[in-house]
Amino acid sequence: MNTPGFHSRHCSALLTDLYQLTMVYGYWRSGVQAKEAAFHLFFRKQPFKGGFSIACGLHDAIDYLRHLCFPDDELDYLRTLTGNDGKPLFEPAFLEYLGKLEWACDVDGVPEGVVFPHQPLLRIQGPLVQCQLVETALLNMLNFQTLIATKAARICLATKGEPVFEFGLRRAQGVDGALAASRAAYIGGCSATSNVLAGYRFGIPVRGTHAHSWVMSFDTEEEAFRTYAEALPNNAVFLVDTYDTLKGVQHAIKMGQWLRARGHELGGVRLDSGDLAWLSMEARRMLDAAGFPKAVIVASNDLDEQTIASLKEQGAAINVWGVGTKLVTAYDQPALGGVYKLAAVRDEDGAWRHKVKLSEQAVKVSTPGLQQVRRFRRDGAFLGDMIFDLDGPPEQSRTIIDPLDLTRRKQIAEDADFEDLLVPIFRGRELVYDLPAIAAVRDRAQTQLLGFHEGHKRLLNPHEYPVGLSPTLHELRTRLILATREESAAAVPAAIHSKP
Amino acid sequence: MNTPGFHSRHCSALLTDLYQLTMVYGYWRSGVQAKEAAFHLFFRKQPFKGGFSIACGLHDAIDYLRHLCFPDDELDYLRTLTGNDGKPLFEPAFLEYLGKLEWACDVDGVPEGVVFPHQPLLRIQGPLVQCQLVETALLNMLNFQTLIATKAARICLATKGEPVFEFGLRRAQGVDGALAASRAAYIGGCSATSNVLAGYRFGIPVRGTHAHSWVMSFDTEEEAFRTYAEALPNNAVFLVDTYDTLKGVQHAIKMGQWLRARGHELGGVRLDSGDLAWLSMEARRMLDAAGFPKAVIVASNDLDEQTIASLKEQGAAINVWGVGTKLVTAYDQPALGGVYKLAAVRDEDGAWRHKVKLSEQAVKVSTPGLQQVRRFRRDGAFLGDMIFDLDGPPEQSRTIIDPLDLTRRKQIAEDADFEDLLVPIFRGRELVYDLPAIAAVRDRAQTQLLGFHEGHKRLLNPHEYPVGLSPTLHELRTRLILATREESAAAVPAAIHSKP
Repeated sequence: MNTPGFHSRHCSALLTDLYQLTMVYGYWRSGVQAKEAAFHLFFRKQPFKGGFSIACGLHDAIDYLRHLCFPDDELDYLRTLTGNDGKPLFEPAFLEYLGKLEWACDVDGVPEGVVFPHQPLLRIQGPLVQCQLVETALLNMLNFQTLIATKAARICLATKGEPVFEFGLRRAQGVDGALAASRAAYIGGCSATSNVLAGYRFGIPVRGTHAHSWVMSFDTEEEAFRTYAEALPNNAVFLVDTYDTLKGVQHAIKMGQWLRARGHELGGVRLDSGDLAWLSMEARRMLDAAGFPKAVIVASNDLDEQTIASLKEQGAAINVWGVGTKLVTAYDQPALGGVYKLAAVRDEDGAWRHKVKLSEQAVKVSTPGLQQVRRFRRDGAFLGDMIFDLDGPPEQSRTIIDPLDLTRRKQIAEDADFEDLLVPIFRGRELVYDLPAIAAVRDRAQTQLLGFHEGHKRLLNPHEYPVGLSPTLHELRTRLILATREESAAAVPAAIHSKP
Repeated sequence: MNTPGFHSRHCSALLTDLYQLTMVYGYWRSGVQAKEAAFHLFFRKQPFKGGFSIACGLHDAIDYLRHLCFPDDELDYLRTLTGNDGKPLFEPAFLEYLGKLEWACDVDGVPEGVVFPHQPLLRIQGPLVQCQLVETALLNMLNFQTLIATKAARICLATKGEPVFEFGLRRAQGVDGALAASRAAYIGGCSATSNVLAGYRFGIPVRGTHAHSWVMSFDTEEEAFRTYAEALPNNAVFLVDTYDTLKGVQHAIKMGQWLRARGHELGGVRLDSGDLAWLSMEARRMLDAAGFPKAVIVASNDLDEQTIASLKEQGAAINVWGVGTKLVTAYDQPALGGVYKLAAVRDEDGAWRHKVKLSEQAVKVSTPGLQQVRRFRRDGAFLGDMIFDLDGPPEQSRTIIDPLDLTRRKQIAEDADFEDLLVPIFRGRELVYDLPAIAAVRDRAQTQLLGFHEGHKRLLNPHEYPVGLSPTLHELRTRLILATREESAAAVPAAIHSKP
């Protein structure tokens, strides 16, 4: 793995909600800790009113699961927790049990790439207590990184292929909010980060030249630029807006001539305030007239996909886009509402008992079964995704049914190829997934994105990509919801046996 | 410090933007690395359209500065970075210099508590290169934690003293986005967190009972509640909305009777969906009628200060508020725009040369000088804050002038007491600040908040608390802006000597 030291941030089983531990204790006390269950992690709605998401965070999730354990000091802490009567919450034998816990679940997951609502990004199958224990940490990692990779992909679509540099460290939500964001942004399509630690840990290209304070610390802007060019002639992009932007461009051009006379080349200028459309066009005109057509114009200042699209529409002459706050915090929607839902529990006779959670909101009713996602493709274009149940005969159907509207169906052409998205990650303690290098992860996600029609990638009012349940799973879900509603009314068992 | 293992997350000087390192290199190359400078970290605008903020993040900042160093592996990484000609960005002697770097700046800071725009939260004074190096990491920590402590304080004002539990781990921005948020939320006024690791690391109370999946994993809700009560009779708060909320309350009441017969007491119920106002009133009525007037009603589901205020106005019978996503991501404004600006550079003759950054936006023009904040108080109530310059005779004035509007002035009463907010944190390598335990930090911030008039704490359209510059600093700033504007036009030195 190209993430030295990375796991140290996650290596704690205490990175969880207390209720996971009280539930684990409850299962242990009632003797059902080994009962087998299946959970799925998924989200219900595309972020940013968009048409796609880029799943991200699998590497961290793997790293967390690999290192899952309760060291003695953490057990000592749990020993101090008390209930409302002042007595310990957990009995000593339970803490001993936790101390010996070894990861024993099977995990299947979707490698970083394009995903849609209702599709499991992870399926965790194994002892109920272990499935439960890891819920919160897995949600934390996948929710955030998927959010940022998606935001980055949107921003990169807006620049139409021009490089985007991620500059968000100073405004990110905490240290890891920055580091994980730099990685996710790169996978989502950014070309580089300003975050040196992210560069080191993840092998992402790093970029940066100088700040306003550099200019201010000298008597004049010209002196500041000259000193910088002398020190770093091979990294000469000048920030020109400390005092007067176009005067700054003139000074940068002077330095470009100075550099050229010494066998170097002016990298470009950076604009960080003011009317970026007008200033970039003026700067371009000045640079071209002075013989620097290759000098790039980097622009930053609270950019996001909307402002970038608008600047491009205005004909801004910007070559490189520095995006910080609005990318790494996903400013217009700073959380993805991913959830982790129980879908089945195995009975003593070995049959899966499927489960749904009801809700007054249709979108919050969960899907039962052991789910896999099949993505159909023809002539390099993706046609639709089918969520189906693995707990049954091999799925043959090519009909997909919208989980929120059974009248919306799509028939996939018989000659379409398909790929099943979830691949084996863990088989118990054994990691069976080969972690690709970050460049390969990024390439995979970017290549996948190309296979989707432009309409699904439109920033505003995208065309919805067809995702639905297989007829069998649709039928199972409907039957189960109706039965659970009735049972809830009658308070009889809330489940359906898949193999009666 | 009550933060075992905490520093391991921050202990890297690479947690910075590349441009800080290229500037440091530039200073080193041009031989001015030891030149003394003063920087301030501050923000320009209250978040959430509010009337106050709670400074937070000082502990992490201290921890970061204490462990600042470049280990060999990180220097090896820097050695691999190249410029646009493919040649190394940094020469070997510079990396050797970095390897030997020892923190030598004086740091003054505002302990966690109430702060306002334009006030320095930190003043860093020392070798230019060191001041520059730490900018990004300090901004990351203080921006985010101040944002969350402020959000938490607003939410706690909305509940009017009823406890708020922070439940945000699963939707937080990364692992540290969750941990740092749990700590900041506690300091801002929350009573507990669901995040067990935050409880362990920071000594914050932890809370939690069970999830929907617990209920779903049993055949009936009653069986689920019974099993839970048997295992954790001293932590019996039942989540009642898995199938039918008020039926869930009936089941919880049954369990309350069961518990009471065994010497335990029903903790309460938790509502996590639906019409919280109506459901809480119904649940309260049912609990009271059944003889459980002390059983609490915990509510959660995308709450923030606005929804809480609305629920209270509707007469919701909620006793404990679980707040997650919207708190830990500061959903409606997920970043604080704190900045770090050069304010003075010391000349070879020992005099400070004051500096301002110009901008077309008045709010973005910086303030020069070595700044301290004086807070005036009379009869337990705060009257106003004065930002003044330490580089001059002791400040005697009691007039404060709005930095954005010189016609807005306030005269502080002569009999008011005052306190200067920034206290010494580091004197070079020596940490001279006693890090208080988290409970003391929280108490201090909460007590301070009480000293401000309700109008400043109003959630909507608060009354602006008076903050301004001293007449001397105002005059210096005005003179410097005018001079710098002229100099910029004429390209002559952009500074004013304080001691000519």
